[in-house]
Amino acid sequence: MKGLKDIENIVIEKKRLLHSANHEEIVSGLTTDVYFLRTMDILQYMGLENQIVTAEIFARKSGVFAGIEEVKNILQDKNIEMWAINEGEIFQSKETLVRIKGSYKEFGIFETAILGALASSSGWATAAKNVKVACGEKTFLCFGARHVHPAVSSVMERAALIGGATGASCVLAAKLMNIEPSGTLPHAAMLIAGDTLKIARAYDEVMPDQHKRIVLVDTFKDEVEESLRIAEELGSKLYGIRLDTPSERGGVTSYLVMELRAKLDINGFGHVKIFVSGGLTPEKIRELSEAGADSFGVGSYISGAPAIDMTMDIKEVAGNPVAKRGRIPGLINNEKLHKII
Amino acid sequence: MKGLKDIENIVIEKKRLLHSANHEEIVSGLTTDVYFLRTMDILQYMGLENQIVTAEIFARKSGVFAGIEEVKNILQDKNIEMWAINEGEIFQSKETLVRIKGSYKEFGIFETAILGALASSSGWATAAKNVKVACGEKTFLCFGARHVHPAVSSVMERAALIGGATGASCVLAAKLMNIEPSGTLPHAAMLIAGDTLKIARAYDEVMPDQHKRIVLVDTFKDEVEESLRIAEELGSKLYGIRLDTPSERGGVTSYLVMELRAKLDINGFGHVKIFVSGGLTPEKIRELSEAGADSFGVGSYISGAPAIDMTMDIKEVAGNPVAKRGRIPGLINNEKLHKII
Amino acid sequence: MKGLKDIENIVIEKKRLLHSANHEEIVSGLTTDVYFLRTMDILQYMGLENQIVTAEIFARKSGVFAGIEEVKNILQDKNIEMWAINEGEIFQSKETLVRIKGSYKEFGIFETAILGALASSSGWATAAKNVKVACGEKTFLCFGARHVHPAVSSVMERAALIGGATGASCVLAAKLMNIEPSGTLPHAAMLIAGDTLKIARAYDEVMPDQHKRIVLVDTFKDEVEESLRIAEELGSKLYGIRLDTPSERGGVTSYLVMELRAKLDINGFGHVKIFVSGGLTPEKIRELSEAGADSFGVGSYISGAPAIDMTMDIKEVAGNPVAKRGRIPGLINNEKLHKII
Amino acid sequence: MKGLKDIENIVIEKKRLLHSANHEEIVSGLTTDVYFLRTMDILQYMGLENQIVTAEIFARKSGVFAGIEEVKNILQDKNIEMWAINEGEIFQSKETLVRIKGSYKEFGIFETAILGALASSSGWATAAKNVKVACGEKTFLCFGARHVHPAVSSVMERAALIGGATGASCVLAAKLMNIEPSGTLPHAAMLIAGDTLKIARAYDEVMPDQHKRIVLVDTFKDEVEESLRIAEELGSKLYGIRLDTPSERGGVTSYLVMELRAKLDINGFGHVKIFVSGGLTPEKIRELSEAGADSFGVGSYISGAPAIDMTMDIKEVAGNPVAKRGRIPGLINNEKLHKII
Amino acid sequence: MKGLKDIENIVIEKKRLLHSANHEEIVSGLTTDVYFLRTMDILQYMGLENQIVTAEIFARKSGVFAGIEEVKNILQDKNIEMWAINEGEIFQSKETLVRIKGSYKEFGIFETAILGALASSSGWATAAKNVKVACGEKTFLCFGARHVHPAVSSVMERAALIGGATGASCVLAAKLMNIEPSGTLPHAAMLIAGDTLKIARAYDEVMPDQHKRIVLVDTFKDEVEESLRIAEELGSKLYGIRLDTPSERGGVTSYLVMELRAKLDINGFGHVKIFVSGGLTPEKIRELSEAGADSFGVGSYISGAPAIDMTMDIKEVAGNPVAKRGRIPGLINNEKLHKII
Amino acid sequence: MKGLKDIENIVIEKKRLLHSANHEEIVSGLTTDVYFLRTMDILQYMGLENQIVTAEIFARKSGVFAGIEEVKNILQDKNIEMWAINEGEIFQSKETLVRIKGSYKEFGIFETAILGALASSSGWATAAKNVKVACGEKTFLCFGARHVHPAVSSVMERAALIGGATGASCVLAAKLMNIEPSGTLPHAAMLIAGDTLKIARAYDEVMPDQHKRIVLVDTFKDEVEESLRIAEELGSKLYGIRLDTPSERGGVTSYLVMELRAKLDINGFGHVKIFVSGGLTPEKIRELSEAGADSFGVGSYISGAPAIDMTMDIKEVAGNPVAKRGRIPGLINNEKLHKII
Repeated sequence: MKGLKDIENIVIEKKRLLHSANHEEIVSGLTTDVYFLRTMDILQYMGLENQIVTAEIFARKSGVFAGIEEVKNILQDKNIEMWAINEGEIFQSKETLVRIKGSYKEFGIFETAILGALASSSGWATAAKNVKVACGEKTFLCFGARHVHPAVSSVMERAALIGGATGASCVLAAKLMNIEPSGTLPHAAMLIAGDTLKIARAYDEVMPDQHKRIVLVDTFKDEVEESLRIAEELGSKLYGIRLDTPSERGGVTSYLVMELRAKLDINGFGHVKIFVSGGLTPEKIRELSEAGADSFGVGSYISGAPAIDMTMDIKEVAGNPVAKRGRIPGLINNEKLHKII
Repeated sequence: MKGLKDIENIVIEKKRLLHSANHEEIVSGLTTDVYFLRTMDILQYMGLENQIVTAEIFARKSGVFAGIEEVKNILQDKNIEMWAINEGEIFQSKETLVRIKGSYKEFGIFETAILGALASSSGWATAAKNVKVACGEKTFLCFGARHVHPAVSSVMERAALIGGATGASCVLAAKLMNIEPSGTLPHAAMLIAGDTLKIARAYDEVMPDQHKRIVLVDTFKDEVEESLRIAEELGSKLYGIRLDTPSERGGVTSYLVMELRAKLDINGFGHVKIFVSGGLTPEKIRELSEAGADSFGVGSYISGAPAIDMTMDIKEVAGNPVAKRGRIPGLINNEKLHKII
Repeated sequence: MKGLKDIENIVIEKKRLLHSANHEEIVSGLTTDVYFLRTMDILQYMGLENQIVTAEIFARKSGVFAGIEEVKNILQDKNIEMWAINEGEIFQSKETLVRIKGSYKEFGIFETAILGALASSSGWATAAKNVKVACGEKTFLCFGARHVHPAVSSVMERAALIGGATGASCVLAAKLMNIEPSGTLPHAAMLIAGDTLKIARAYDEVMPDQHKRIVLVDTFKDEVEESLRIAEELGSKLYGIRLDTPSERGGVTSYLVMELRAKLDINGFGHVKIFVSGGLTPEKIRELSEAGADSFGVGSYISGAPAIDMTMDIKEVAGNPVAKRGRIPGLINNEKLHKII
Repeated sequence: MKGLKDIENIVIEKKRLLHSANHEEIVSGLTTDVYFLRTMDILQYMGLENQIVTAEIFARKSGVFAGIEEVKNILQDKNIEMWAINEGEIFQSKETLVRIKGSYKEFGIFETAILGALASSSGWATAAKNVKVACGEKTFLCFGARHVHPAVSSVMERAALIGGATGASCVLAAKLMNIEPSGTLPHAAMLIAGDTLKIARAYDEVMPDQHKRIVLVDTFKDEVEESLRIAEELGSKLYGIRLDTPSERGGVTSYLVMELRAKLDINGFGHVKIFVSGGLTPEKIRELSEAGADSFGVGSYISGAPAIDMTMDIKEVAGNPVAKRGRIPGLINNEKLHKII
Repeated sequence: MKGLKDIENIVIEKKRLLHSANHEEIVSGLTTDVYFLRTMDILQYMGLENQIVTAEIFARKSGVFAGIEEVKNILQDKNIEMWAINEGEIFQSKETLVRIKGSYKEFGIFETAILGALASSSGWATAAKNVKVACGEKTFLCFGARHVHPAVSSVMERAALIGGATGASCVLAAKLMNIEPSGTLPHAAMLIAGDTLKIARAYDEVMPDQHKRIVLVDTFKDEVEESLRIAEELGSKLYGIRLDTPSERGGVTSYLVMELRAKLDINGFGHVKIFVSGGLTPEKIRELSEAGADSFGVGSYISGAPAIDMTMDIKEVAGNPVAKRGRIPGLINNEKLHKII
Repeated sequence: MKGLKDIENIVIEKKRLLHSANHEEIVSGLTTDVYFLRTMDILQYMGLENQIVTAEIFARKSGVFAGIEEVKNILQDKNIEMWAINEGEIFQSKETLVRIKGSYKEFGIFETAILGALASSSGWATAAKNVKVACGEKTFLCFGARHVHPAVSSVMERAALIGGATGASCVLAAKLMNIEPSGTLPHAAMLIAGDTLKIARAYDEVMPDQHKRIVLVDTFKDEVEESLRIAEELGSKLYGIRLDTPSERGGVTSYLVMELRAKLDINGFGHVKIFVSGGLTPEKIRELSEAGADSFGVGSYISGAPAIDMTMDIKEVAGNPVAKRGRIPGLINNEKLHKII
């Protein structure tokens, strides 16, 4: 995409399966806002299309930086220079996170895509970091894929791993990070089998020995009663119990965790871990962790984390400091920046 | 993807540009959570993989329904029946929105993708509807693409159009909905040209006659002074002024809109519309609309709208009503449902 | 008790079982505050002990009047006249509720006992009335005896019946009101028997046919699972299920009531009533009633209701209006008063 | 009371004076809830009536322990063992306060009475402790008898003494604790005499020399003016002035205390103490104490203190740990427990 | 004062008594801000001193208009035209209240004085109007002179009369409005005489028959006791009692008013009015009026009322509409304006 | 003014320009409340007019003391003794600030004037002190004259100087304090000239060299753009820029100050100071000071500061301690007092 004319040539296939953009569409500029194409036409008309500019990206809130790998790939073949801070680094409000220098026509139309990639991944990574701090030494998985579009569930889980998540249940995300996907069993499996014990037995028989068996217990019976049934059946092969009591039944309380821990211990199942999920927030995790929970599944706190909005400002044109009203002209230095293109 | 074995065969290309999933990856099940594959292996081991089940999807909050077209495409070749309410319909908490009947192995692994598609699109459409109600007869565009991953900016803008947005600035989204993309000019254009009047002149000369010329005025000068300079230059060809005063300068106040309207009118530019953007919410839109604004650009209120979390419950297995603890067993009827597969 | 000298003659038996006062102790004035005895000595010294006075009792808050029967019995043999409003009547702040006329020495030392009897009973009756309003046509029992001293549990349950309770579980209270005591079975019974079903069977066999069998189900198993086990065993003889889920497990939620109702109905037990208890307030009762609960057990909302403090003012001395600073001298008429002594 | 049959034999005398229970009624089990009698019949039918159980009592809030002497007397002739913490000890939430071991039939029907005795006395003692902390070295009396039923005013004053009150005005309570009752004079005395000075003179003449003369001054005149009249009359024999200004006149303010102190001192009555009452709370006591008040009379803050609800859980049956859902099975140790039966 | 040079000639007398400005000082421009003189010098240098301009005055809040008579007198000899709304009229936010047309040099330096006169008087008049609304048909006096500088106490009382006060106690203010000053007696009189009754007698003997005798009663004794002493002494000649109980003694409560009314009536003094003062606000007046108070003395609610800040904008220069940023250029019409110069 | 008779002789001139009181009127007692004159007549009638009394003045809040010079001048010729603390001293609630001893007839009628002078000046001085604390080493001017009556603008500015203001713009106030008046230029000057640059040039040419040129820049153009135009024109002669952005345009934000500072520095105008005004409070000043503002203009925070109400109590009559109810009789010592008359 170079200008308004290119719009006319776009054809949407009748058989298109999804409304999300494929990689080639994004990299070709198809997801740009139309006014960037219009800008290209006008700058060319004014003879300014080759103007060398420097743009800087900053956020208005602090957070954990993520998404820059995608930005690098989008711009890798352009005739520009680019500097950025590292993925996983904590940044402050108004700090320069990315600097791009080159002819505006090389990267101008990608402003929307670049900011979107950084804003969404950094938002997710920041929420995961908050969870990590609440967990301390304990582990957590991101369970939020069901709340985001499938085109970005792998992006979100990858950002959660950058922020501190212990594993990914999304197959694609795990593969992207070169780890094995992890998770338990869904309520659907229990409902089809009709009995948690029956499916736990089959699960035990099917899975390889080294697999950590974790069984979800709130589908049919009292959670503690069901846990003891499963523990008696699987014995030392049972790695953990997952509590996911629905809000209609009062959710997972810290007392339930304490009670399950005590009754597992009394009955000789001190080795069985307790894994909890369902509407968890850092505050709730702190409370349940103190009550004895060993691991956590976190959904909408991460998936619904607000994007950390990013702003790209042109700060130099032809070597001269500029800025729009409300901003300080000229580059703002940041020692954490390093050259990536 | 049919089971855990298929995971081993997945290869991530070294040159992969982005972390988001392409259409074929989604439709092949690659974004599924690993526990659905594990469930498949276990059910097969138990001889239950062909069990006929009926699942229902509901939300815990009311909203505007969107995203079902993608769900239909994901499942179109499966041996199932599916019912749903229409895109754009308003739904209530706990209402049945989608019903799927068939062998669990046909659709089980898509639970995550289906819920994610519906939850995100319905969240965006609902926010857009709130904006629409605040606008009344006036128009608004969605300016939120810069806050979401580029893979889903087109999904978001499409959902905003379903919820009531007047147009789309994302080129791909506009094409998906078969309309022309719309928008103004970015601050970058002004900064490169160095003067708003200069670029307004070029913009006027480059664009075809029928194009509605809207000029962004807050880059360099007092907004009202700049507006009058532009209006005197473009005269009757100027369609509108866009105010986007940054928060550092107090944002766009209702008094600024009133003052601009008065000074445009006094100087004979009563035909020039006022378009505002910058941190708008339905409440702020009501206030600015009353002050005389004609049209609105809405960003993070739509892009950052929380997903409307969806739940898929198996409600019948082999024709018998079932439910997990906390839910009512059996189908829950909804007259708005109609068969789509 | 006539004066300070009588104090010297009081002997507390070594074997005294309880610190509460027996009827004869109260009626003889033993629970009076010492300053009333001192007053008697002084008035006698001044020759004022036969002064005819009129005293009036009022409350600073509105409520339901109760306790006057006890007051009447305490003063029945004295040489006085007394007027009062009826038990069960609603009164307003500052309304005259009782008027006593006679020589001060006849009733002065009973001021503390009289006010205490009225304040506590009226407080309990008022709370019970609030519960009654929330229940509408449905029934409720008072379960608060375990929060008050055993000397007054019968007083409290009687006041609750005056305020609108449907029955009393305290044996003495029921006998006082000439009705049969009612209630279910305690958790202790289930714990000793070790299984709810086992004890439900014995309960069914032991009780006469006309007894309404209500079984408490939250001791060992999931409430709904246990309810269905009991219902299948007792069939049409089961009158109701009692839910008393402890707060450690999230308490009784309105969703649990809805789920139990639905699953009882689906399984053919539409005749079984749902009885709930545990931290109920009028607001919570309204919510659970709407969800399908049929009857309620209310504890600390009634037992812990604040007493409605009563004030006794001398308003006439020797036929002349008097009052202390802050009060209006002379009698304050109330048409609801009628002569009871 | 051994079972349901015993209910039939209960006869309520026509001449019964009060609704409260006498000591023998309580000890015979007459105030029990009917479901404990029903439980006895069922357990006997099941052959479980001699089952040895251990029950423990705990509270959900912290407080000051009181009431155990009555519990000991109720159970003293039963074939059980009992352990408890001391009266007056501070306890924490969920701490084991009492443990009872024996055949359930020996103590089961007393659950209601035991919990009620502990809950109410501990509630009152805890409030009195809060007052004590606010008073520091200064003294206070409990004036709350007029807000509770006369059957328990002695129980309440005794609990207040355990919590830290300096004396008791209820004659019976004082005798129970083997101290002299204390207090001032009521407004009624002043109103009958018609002049505070006149009654103060008679009071002085009637009382023995060692009696501490305290005169209530707000009945007729300005409090300070009246205080000086009394002080001039009684001179060095006046021990203190009591301020009880009614809320209709603004209550007792800290400025009134300061003014009275100053004017007493200026007029040579520096030895006269200031005693205040009327709606006092710990916070108000701190303020008035700082202003110069020497002693306090506290009513509804103590009498209306919420009972500290107690729970009795069966934790062992025939030597095996048990618990209902929501609780941890087995005994919970507490080093403060000591054997009392 | 015409320019900076005139400043040099100003001499402050050594014997100057007060820091406030006398009338001639104000009218000569001596209280102007120095930048208006500087403006004069510059405009003259630019040859713009005779420019004809139109200025308008508006407020940002609604209120009652007052102070324009002084403005008229300040500008009466200038070569200008002036329009204004009437004193006592209610105005809305942003309404044009005054319009001045003429050569800027004629009135420019008076901007500060004009705005100050209007802002302060309108603030006081508005507060008085709020009191008037709360009083309904009853009367009130302004008692706020002790909280403002003596140079403006007459201005404040005059504004209060415009807003609705019934009379003025400030002698000068009364004379300005051509009425007789009114008021009661101060605490100082009572303290010097040493007894309220003694001074009430002298007051009665000294004053002419038609004078309405009102006696302040809270200096030494209980208010009600003192009131009855005075009423018995003065009989039908007593017009009213004034209650001013200090906050140290709880202030004047509505119960005190009720009690005084009742005791006056019982003792045959139904003709005696009750006048209250001390920290009154419209809300408190409503409460005391309902309790029976007949008239009110209002201090800091009026004297401390915030000035209603006024803004003077130049809206036309040489017949052309102008405005600074943030304002609408050109005259804003108001039908309530009429020509006063 | 000696008594009620003197009122009859007062004549208000028809041509009276203003409602405020001139110095002679105040000193002659014309602004007194009528009840002081009445008191004089009554005391004379009682033969008490020569009674020697001691009165003390205190405040109910802490603050900065001001206004005593005027009080001294009012009473200087009277036959009294007077002690006071110094102007500018900080005082606490209830501290004795002034003591006056003498025959009541000498100073009684001046109570209102004395309290008003002290209350208003101390209120203004206290607010100015709060501003001073917020400014730290930086300077501020009082801009509040337009919100108070012109008779007291000089009193207010003088009090602000006592509290810590750096200068006065009111000509009379400056002269009273023997300093040069200071300030910038009003919007009116800009509007008449039609261009800020034009008037800045004239201002520069007219003013003497040593004058600190400060130019107000928000009248017509963007504040930063205008500042740079002025700075380029006046160069090193420009002392400062004044920002006064109206609330309609978002007011002066800390970002605007930062931006202006940065752009002045970038363009070589590092010597130019930034002066801000418009709705400033101590909190806002702290924020803007941190952002780089160098000096402040404060209006309604000072002019609208509540008066610090003063109370004058007679504490000795003929050498004996007295007090009204609610106060402590006798003198209250204060080491800060020193004799001034």
